[in-house]
Amino acid sequence: MNVVLFAAGAALWPEYEAPLRRAFAEAGVAADLVTEADPARVSAIIYAPGSPLQDFTPFTRCGLVQNLWAGVERIVGNPTLTQPLCRMVDPGLTEGMVEYVTGHVLRHHLGMDRHILRAPGWDQIIPPLARERRVTVLGLGELGLACARALQALNFDVAGWSRSAKTGLPFPADHGEEGLQRVLARSDILVTLLPRTAETENLLDAQRLDWLPRGAVIINPGRGALIDDAALLAALDRGQIGHATLDVFRVEPLPDDHPFRRHPRVTVTPHIAADTRASSASRVVAENLRRLQRGEPLLHRVDLARGY
Amino acid sequence: MNVVLFAAGAALWPEYEAPLRRAFAEAGVAADLVTEADPARVSAIIYAPGSPLQDFTPFTRCGLVQNLWAGVERIVGNPTLTQPLCRMVDPGLTEGMVEYVTGHVLRHHLGMDRHILRAPGWDQIIPPLARERRVTVLGLGELGLACARALQALNFDVAGWSRSAKTGLPFPADHGEEGLQRVLARSDILVTLLPRTAETENLLDAQRLDWLPRGAVIINPGRGALIDDAALLAALDRGQIGHATLDVFRVEPLPDDHPFRRHPRVTVTPHIAADTRASSASRVVAENLRRLQRGEPLLHRVDLARGY
Repeated sequence: MNVVLFAAGAALWPEYEAPLRRAFAEAGVAADLVTEADPARVSAIIYAPGSPLQDFTPFTRCGLVQNLWAGVERIVGNPTLTQPLCRMVDPGLTEGMVEYVTGHVLRHHLGMDRHILRAPGWDQIIPPLARERRVTVLGLGELGLACARALQALNFDVAGWSRSAKTGLPFPADHGEEGLQRVLARSDILVTLLPRTAETENLLDAQRLDWLPRGAVIINPGRGALIDDAALLAALDRGQIGHATLDVFRVEPLPDDHPFRRHPRVTVTPHIAADTRASSASRVVAENLRRLQRGEPLLHRVDLARGY
Repeated sequence: MNVVLFAAGAALWPEYEAPLRRAFAEAGVAADLVTEADPARVSAIIYAPGSPLQDFTPFTRCGLVQNLWAGVERIVGNPTLTQPLCRMVDPGLTEGMVEYVTGHVLRHHLGMDRHILRAPGWDQIIPPLARERRVTVLGLGELGLACARALQALNFDVAGWSRSAKTGLPFPADHGEEGLQRVLARSDILVTLLPRTAETENLLDAQRLDWLPRGAVIINPGRGALIDDAALLAALDRGQIGHATLDVFRVEPLPDDHPFRRHPRVTVTPHIAADTRASSASRVVAENLRRLQRGEPLLHRVDLARGY
């Protein structure tokens, strides 16, 4: 019997225990799911940031560290981690992200806020059609790709950008530093879905914010560190950026006295764009355990050198 | 040469003249487009509500009255109208409607308003997935069908309803009075896209509003008269209806002192959900003129007895 250690924290155990056991049974995975174990006997670890487990050295027979979150920046730099690390790519998480992104893109496209905020009168401002609205998605991983496809299905004029070149995409895409300037220059609405790495930290700095068309809208459900906060506030103040809808921040919860809270051109959402759902995430964990037991390639394995 | 009378009003002439002439040329339609003519020589009339033309009797050789709007309730009852009447089904209008409806459904689904209205704190309310949200579209004409399909593509749990039975739809649909009670009972979000006829006036009265689940959201981009205003306000007051987003009203512009303007559970948009675009609408006019000249069936012909 394989010993699977649930080390994602005591708070998540009640939420995950039953869905995990059910998913293991459905996948035909024979596993002893426990919250404490002799490290030398553990074959796989289910993990989440904030776990008390920080030293992976004693887990000498462990073939899988399965993160329950998509983001791995709080574990990938752990020098004791030599075991294979897998990110969570939860279909529920992807669906939730697509709904958040399409919803907020349509909100800005349609100019909804003036009506929600009760503009008086009868000012019939007709928005352009989606086909006339240029939307760019930075980051073409699972989440970025799903969002770009959904926006394209809604007729938006979509382009994508990734750090390294991608082929076979159903929409125009660019890559690298030079490509970034090109795609920013055509972005009425910009969606940032890059992972947090050394290369993406402050990717949107003062200079690159200026590459956007005047009045562009930014939607950031990716990582708070992708944007230079002070540069964004300055660009909002002078109207270079028309609005920023931000779901992720350098410090969370975002303090009540943070300038983003009171800026008229900023909408704060409390890190709700994508949330792992225990039921669908547990099926992903079970599938990776099944693959581990059969010696098949693991799903969504992290390249520890690249950091995602 | 066919004489085509532009009788949609002097205000629209500058907007439509060039697009119409361009569309006629592209479609190979030989037509003399004029704003005044001997009625006996007119082969087709381009019309809009509010036109000074109210007596169709002298147009004895006219084979087509092409309305520039989707709604025909202000012309269909004209007793002098015996010529074939066609509604405008503008692809731009349909696209605009789909964008409005998907945008506002996602807005309510995601609970955006609390963030746009700057709720303090860090209350991470995670919405259900779209697949867990029941959305019903009342009215399965061109616009309703396009909206239902788009909502289904976004994973919403979609159902439709129409007055008479429809088959071959890609989502569950019901019809008739008995079916209306069934679909209302499963509607977390209700979209009303019915034409205005004697049968649909006050379709949503006090009794039927009570058939909705408590807290249901209504989005009405169809016709103001579909909903009993007083019954809606009463249902909003007691929380039976959670929110109403209304684009159309019995009197437009909606007066500044109308109760909808200040009700905390009502969002007013100023009849912007769908607007005919001159360029795409002109191509539809040209296509119907081409069909008229060749004796082919006209597009989007109105059944004068049914009223739409």
